[in-house]
Amino acid sequence: MSEPSLDILGIGNAIVDVLARAEDGFLERENLAKGAMRLIGAEQADSLYAKMGPGVESSGGSAANTCAVAAALGARVGFLGKVADDALGQVFAHDIRAAGVHFPTAPLKAKGEGYAPTARCLILVTPDAQRTMNTYLGACVQFSAADVDPAEVARARVLYLEGYLFDPPAAQAAFYEAARIAHQAGRQVAISLSDAFCVERHRQAFLRFVREEADILFANQSELAALYETEDFAAAARLAAADVGLAALTRSEQGSIILAGEERHAVPAAPVKVVDTTGAGDAYAAGFLAALTRGLPLPECGRWGSVAAAEVISHFGARPQADLQALVAGKLPPGARPVADTLG
Amino acid sequence: MSEPSLDILGIGNAIVDVLARAEDGFLERENLAKGAMRLIGAEQADSLYAKMGPGVESSGGSAANTCAVAAALGARVGFLGKVADDALGQVFAHDIRAAGVHFPTAPLKAKGEGYAPTARCLILVTPDAQRTMNTYLGACVQFSAADVDPAEVARARVLYLEGYLFDPPAAQAAFYEAARIAHQAGRQVAISLSDAFCVERHRQAFLRFVREEADILFANQSELAALYETEDFAAAARLAAADVGLAALTRSEQGSIILAGEERHAVPAAPVKVVDTTGAGDAYAAGFLAALTRGLPLPECGRWGSVAAAEVISHFGARPQADLQALVAGKLPPGARPVADTLG
Repeated sequence: MSEPSLDILGIGNAIVDVLARAEDGFLERENLAKGAMRLIGAEQADSLYAKMGPGVESSGGSAANTCAVAAALGARVGFLGKVADDALGQVFAHDIRAAGVHFPTAPLKAKGEGYAPTARCLILVTPDAQRTMNTYLGACVQFSAADVDPAEVARARVLYLEGYLFDPPAAQAAFYEAARIAHQAGRQVAISLSDAFCVERHRQAFLRFVREEADILFANQSELAALYETEDFAAAARLAAADVGLAALTRSEQGSIILAGEERHAVPAAPVKVVDTTGAGDAYAAGFLAALTRGLPLPECGRWGSVAAAEVISHFGARPQADLQALVAGKLPPGARPVADTLG
Repeated sequence: MSEPSLDILGIGNAIVDVLARAEDGFLERENLAKGAMRLIGAEQADSLYAKMGPGVESSGGSAANTCAVAAALGARVGFLGKVADDALGQVFAHDIRAAGVHFPTAPLKAKGEGYAPTARCLILVTPDAQRTMNTYLGACVQFSAADVDPAEVARARVLYLEGYLFDPPAAQAAFYEAARIAHQAGRQVAISLSDAFCVERHRQAFLRFVREEADILFANQSELAALYETEDFAAAARLAAADVGLAALTRSEQGSIILAGEERHAVPAAPVKVVDTTGAGDAYAAGFLAALTRGLPLPECGRWGSVAAAEVISHFGARPQADLQALVAGKLPPGARPVADTLG
């Protein structure tokens, strides 16, 4: 086995976010459940977009956000995900590469069979600062095992998979293929459960993957409850610890619990004025894995996760704005932000 | 002459802004003059974009910003400008329509002769919050007299032209055609000088248009100095008053001077904590014209301009975030902003 030349290889949906303000009445008229993520088709996306207010576009995607944050923390990171060869696909590719992430996946070309435009998530921000997400998966549906480059997987210390990829059907096969390659190369496989509704949609598939393939599990309380069908957090955590070698379970302002064999660590959340919680879990996983692949002890992995999550929820947008390496080194006060702090 | 069914018809470059952070060293290495707007070609745009950090996209364009602000103030507004039939063109069209602006111009279709993608402005924001703009005109270059729908021009009380349109060659002919139709229908023609460098590039053409066609002139101090080749503001203002029936001249925090025949009005700027001055002039013109087309007296037109400009420079992005109609009615304190105030 050669020395890994990447710390983390993420696989996930490659999505551009479109943010627009909306009143509560708009959500009611459109029959949208506030705070939830739902999948929509192309026609629904066009119809909703036409009714939405003026928007702001920026790159998103759960695992892609994780990769961007981990790269900002100094990890060597790659990402696999499917965009189309269109303007939004160029935006996604530019942004993730500009964040320092290796992004080799070929875009969907031409308008042949199965062609779909780059995925977008229409995000409605209500006056209470909550986000309601409507995802059109577009080109992501075409991500398949053929997009899993064995060399990329084999050269990464940790393979990181986004639970949202259980939605596009071909991606589950890609997950198993990627996990097989990773394990064959002696690497670790991490999965994030992503979203409680997504877990409910694919519960058996999630359980099987967690038990058979995952070495590291990231989940928040509601995702864990959905997976193990219990609201008893301690009981669910014990089940997770039996299923995977390492579990990092987040509990919002109560911080996180790390379980590894018989080890247990409780890590506090970093203090922060919350502006927008989107991307908190993505950033936590990024901080955790950036520290883990650097060989730091588990409580320190949790602390890096807390610091990264705090930075990301202190402003709009799921990608970091402050100097994360300075933040984890304690060289910046918590909540430190650049002057031009509303860009992304 | 029939009663106008639009208050304002704007004509300008249809541009999507791409904002990214940059250090001063980046501007130096790329040989960019901080704070300026320069025109770049497709290859330069690709090359600069590849070097830029992660971006945030939102609709821009000077006259388009004016139209969006005027519509937010309750004016009936239309806009003519050229996008391509691509994803950024759809973003531009969506955003301006979502702002309540009638936007009938057909996008450039297919990849035939003269095809170019939707225009974009690559904006580098340095830590001092200054913006350095690099505009690739793309599809805007194809805007021509054929895009000037006589019925749209004839039904608008004021035709509003953006000086930046002196850059794409075919657009100057379109300006004269639009002005001819407007005057024939008994409407007024307004022009904004847009940018001192743009005025220097096309000084004779600007002077001729202002003298022969313009009824209303918008300019700031440096643009006025460039047009009349004098740093003496009072002298330049007198020249402007001789050339047009109505001139609204802005002087940043010193407010604006309105000249109409022998009339003179000095209007103070509205108090505001400045975050980003981009779009100040666009918003001033919007407020001024929204009040003027409603039949309000000139000092009130200036006040609406000041209030709209103050709102737009109190946050990132050149399009309004607060309830402008409440602001001009004095129903909101200056600087009032919605909770989710960083969307753009």
